[in-house]
Order: sequence, then structure tokens, then C-alpha cells
Amino acid sequence: MKQAVRVAITGAAGNIGYAAAFRIAAGNMLGTDQPIILKLIEIAPALDALKGVEMELRDCAFPLLEDIVCTADTSEGFGDVDYVLSIGSKPRTKGMERADLLSENGKIFGPQGKAINDNASKNVKVLVVGNPANTNALIACNNAPDLDPSQFTSMMRLDHNRAISQLASKTGAAVTGIKQLVVWGNHSLTQYPDISHCTVDGKDAKSLVDDAWYKDEFMPKVQKRGAEIINARGASSAASAASAAIDHMRDWVKGSNDWVSLGMISKGDYGISEGLMYSFPVICKNGNFEVVQGLNQDDFSIEMMKATEKELLEEREAVKDLL
Amino acid sequence: MKQAVRVAITGAAGNIGYAAAFRIAAGNMLGTDQPIILKLIEIAPALDALKGVEMELRDCAFPLLEDIVCTADTSEGFGDVDYVLSIGSKPRTKGMERADLLSENGKIFGPQGKAINDNASKNVKVLVVGNPANTNALIACNNAPDLDPSQFTSMMRLDHNRAISQLASKTGAAVTGIKQLVVWGNHSLTQYPDISHCTVDGKDAKSLVDDAWYKDEFMPKVQKRGAEIINARGASSAASAASAAIDHMRDWVKGSNDWVSLGMISKGDYGISEGLMYSFPVICKNGNFEVVQGLNQDDFSIEMMKATEKELLEEREAVKDLL
Repeated sequence: MKQAVRVAITGAAGNIGYAAAFRIAAGNMLGTDQPIILKLIEIAPALDALKGVEMELRDCAFPLLEDIVCTADTSEGFGDVDYVLSIGSKPRTKGMERADLLSENGKIFGPQGKAINDNASKNVKVLVVGNPANTNALIACNNAPDLDPSQFTSMMRLDHNRAISQLASKTGAAVTGIKQLVVWGNHSLTQYPDISHCTVDGKDAKSLVDDAWYKDEFMPKVQKRGAEIINARGASSAASAASAAIDHMRDWVKGSNDWVSLGMISKGDYGISEGLMYSFPVICKNGNFEVVQGLNQDDFSIEMMKATEKELLEEREAVKDLL
Repeated sequence: MKQAVRVAITGAAGNIGYAAAFRIAAGNMLGTDQPIILKLIEIAPALDALKGVEMELRDCAFPLLEDIVCTADTSEGFGDVDYVLSIGSKPRTKGMERADLLSENGKIFGPQGKAINDNASKNVKVLVVGNPANTNALIACNNAPDLDPSQFTSMMRLDHNRAISQLASKTGAAVTGIKQLVVWGNHSLTQYPDISHCTVDGKDAKSLVDDAWYKDEFMPKVQKRGAEIINARGASSAASAASAAIDHMRDWVKGSNDWVSLGMISKGDYGISEGLMYSFPVICKNGNFEVVQGLNQDDFSIEMMKATEKELLEEREAVKDLL
């Protein structure tokens, strides 16, 4: 049996954390041969609810789950962890300006980055799910000077999976038939779901759908899917967000056969400003990821990629004191 | 790739159904090589919420999930299904007598048994989770004359897993070190969690714990765990119940290495009245299960097994018009 690895989940008593924890304990993220110690982190007022999550996890008698630690202390929670799913964040409340949202979350993610830097394994892999995810991840990354920036990522996989599902549904293909799709930029309404390089059962995707559907239906549908889910469920995406987080981390650790989308610190690829937390198409291999190079971009793509970059530049400017 | 199988989930928009559906779609129940069509069944007022569940399932782009059907029509919902997780039931409301609870649920599970009988695959495997699970399963079974009674089971796996977890915690063993545990009888306070035949890392469990702990702490803890979870979470067990349902069905289909506990129609083993839906220790093999035979029962065990049998006999009497 392998040595156990430590997986931290922040916001573990919330709906996404709850949906993720059981699947991770069942081996969905790291494989059914990988024992796990779960480190569940919550703010102090949620520790009672977190106790209930711990009890249910224990009640499952998961063979892989060696231990569970519940804490509001991030030094303890991130101690020696190999993987972080940073899910907890401050939600936008009625009347809150975007600048306030960014700065309120900055107060969480700055200290969180430092706590990860000071306590986690030196090889820790961090995925930020809590919104605004890209800029939260940027802040955490910039507060972890001893770690490599490539150890911090933000989640675009839910958008990526949603785009695959919509395109599969439109073309009548299986989701496994969709390849080389990417969602660029920010996990927000400015994200750019791009099928320029995409194939459906080996055929050029753009030859199978008309441009009006692509730009006027598909793109807004993917961009606004979060709101559509809230309308239908009366609650925001939980199990699908957890599933995307598991997909993201699993592929990062075990490799991806196809392109996946993830927010990462830009090194200037495709003209995107260096140091932004921006989503690119990547291939994961040997525990790392590399940006897919050499893609031709038409004018529409460049315009879309710049628009979402502009938003991220503004977000970065709004939190510059925290970086 | 294998042919897709059909899995029906009733109460699919509820908390247990929600927790189960995504894990089933991810391959946790039937394996990562088994494509699935999910048939999600709800009462009409919950169809809007169910639509949200469907949308989130599609947003996961699960490779194994070939299709999703949402319906309030049980003929459609159970049509050609290979597996049924019958989760939805009428909960006990304040002031409701047990007899009323039984008869209200009888009105659901009688027609449900008939709809399964008339529409499902002739080899369908049915797991009833919705409480009172044993008697609900009994009613469904008795309304499905064309199916074999062994195709209907009720869930005791949550109690079984809870008992394993408590004993592992007490003895410092891993959950995988606990073997030959059984929870007999009814999924209720009269259930009998039995460690008489149990080993912990190969040692006799009863030699490792004292009798007072076993009878005065362990047994009530397992019996009343549901209430403890409600107190801690402010909500009843959801993900742990879903996990137990997945364990139950997975072992039934793929085989169990160890004893597992499940509610099944008694054939008179251990003196339990024939035709009751009673939990026995079984070993699953080749898609079937067989009661573990030849266990010696001491006076305490016989007393406990009879007490939970008595309750089930009373429940059966209360619903006799539905059988």
C-alpha cells in the first residue's frame, strides 16, 4: 500500500466541499490505490457543521481514508499537505461592489497563501475554486514566495466541462468525442469558450455548427451557466463544481490525454500579460502542465482573449496592495 | 465498450439522491468501464429541482453517462432498468404515528413494486433506502409477482459501515481490518449490531473490547447514529447514506470479499419468520447473495434477533392489506 497523502479542503462544510470530500475519500481524485488523510478547514462558526461532515465521512468506512483532521487553524490545516482544494471564499452579497468583493477575499487569500507557503509540503499543488477564483489564486500565489508559481492554479474545468457538454449535445456526439476545446481567461462572464481548434469525432467542430449558434447561443450559454443552474436548483452548482475540481486535480496529478483548461500564472504565452492568473489550454504530464503552443488565433479569438485579459488586469489592479 | 445499463433513482432531487447520482455517474457503483443511463424519478412537484440536477450532471461531462431521463411517470422511469435505488419515501412528520407512516409509505411502495414488475428488466436488482426501508421493500416485493423475491433488498449497509467505523475507532484498527461483522434485523432502533463472529486484524473482536462497552456504548451508538448526525449537521445523513447504497449495490453486482449486511426476504434461516424483510449476514458472489450459515448464537444474540424480528412482524401486520 502506498503512503497516505494529505488533502486539504477549505470551506469543507459548504455544499461544494461536502460534495467533493466523499468522492475524494472514495478514490475518485487520486486513484483507488492511494490512501488519504483529509484535512478539513472551516471558519470557526462552521466547525459544528464540519463535525457532522467528519462523522458522515467516518460512517462510510472508506478503505482509503486513513484519518480526518477538522480545524479552523490554517497552520494546522495546511500542515504537510500535498494537495489543496481552496473552496471557501466570501460570496458576493446584495449591493456589494466588485472591488469590495475582491478586497474582502484578498483578506482571506493573502493569509491563506502565506499559511500554505509556511506549512504545506514543498511540492504542494493548489487549486483555487472559491470566487473570484483567478484573482484569489493570484493573491495566494503572490503570498507564497517559497513556492513555484506553477503550484497555484484556479479552476476553469467547470466551464470547460460545460462547454464540452453543450457542444456534444448540439452535435449529437458523446462527450468523449470532443477534443481540443479550451476556455480562455477569467472564470467570469468574460471567459472565452473557444472551439476554433476543437474536433468532434475527429471532424473540425466549426464545420459542424454555424457561427451564429457558436457566438450567440453556445458562448453565452457556457458563460452564464452558473446563473441558469441557480435558477433551476434554487442553489448554486455544487456537485458539478466538486466534480470539476476532482477532474482538475486528477489530471494534474495523473496526466490528461486531451487539452484541459486551467488558470495559471501567465508566462506571456499568446501575448497575455505575464503574472496574470489566466486560463490557457494545457496538457498535463508527469505532475506538471504545459501550455499548448503554436495555435493560430483569428481576429475574433484575439478580441475575446484580450477582453477577458483586460478584466483580469483590472482585478489585479484592484488588489495590488495584496500582491 | 460495454453496453449501457439503466439505473433508476427515486427521490433523485433529494439530498441522498443528489449525493448518489454523481458518484454513480462517475463509475463508483458499477465500475469505470460500465456506461450508464440514469433514470431519475421524482414526484411532480420536484421535477423543476430535478431539472437542475440533470443540468449539473450534464455539466460534469462524465464519460460513462450516456443519457439522463427525468420523469414523474414510474412506467417510464422503471422502463428496462437494470438497477433501482429506491430512495424517495414519505418522511415521518410531527405527531405522525408509526402505523400512519407505514400506511402512507405503503401507498408509494405498492404501486412502485408493480411498476418495477411491469416495466423493469426481468433481472432487475432493487435496493430500498427510503424509510421504513425493510417494510417498504417488503411491500414492493409483494407487489412484484413476476420477479424473484431475492431481487428486492433493503439497506442495512449504512448501519453496517457505521458499526465497522466505531469498532475500528475503538480498537485503533483500520476499517479494512474489521471482518465478519453483521447488523441483523430492522433498519431501526431495534437493529442488532453483532460482533460475536467479528475479527479485528485477525483477532476475536470480543476479546479486544469489554462487554459493557459493546452493549452500553457501541450498540446504542450505532442504533442512534442517525439522530446524532441530524444533531450535528442540522440535516439527516445524505452523502453517507448514498455511499452505503453504492457499496450495497456494487458488492451485490461485483461480489463482496467479506460479509455484508442487507435486508432480504427471509427463508427461515436462524429461525427468522419466512417472508420477512430482515437483515442477515451475506456473502455476494456472481450477482447473487447467500446467507452465511452455521453461526452459533448465544442467548443475548437470540434475544436481540428476536426483538428486531418482533418489530418487523408488527410492521408487516400493520401493512398486511398491501401485501
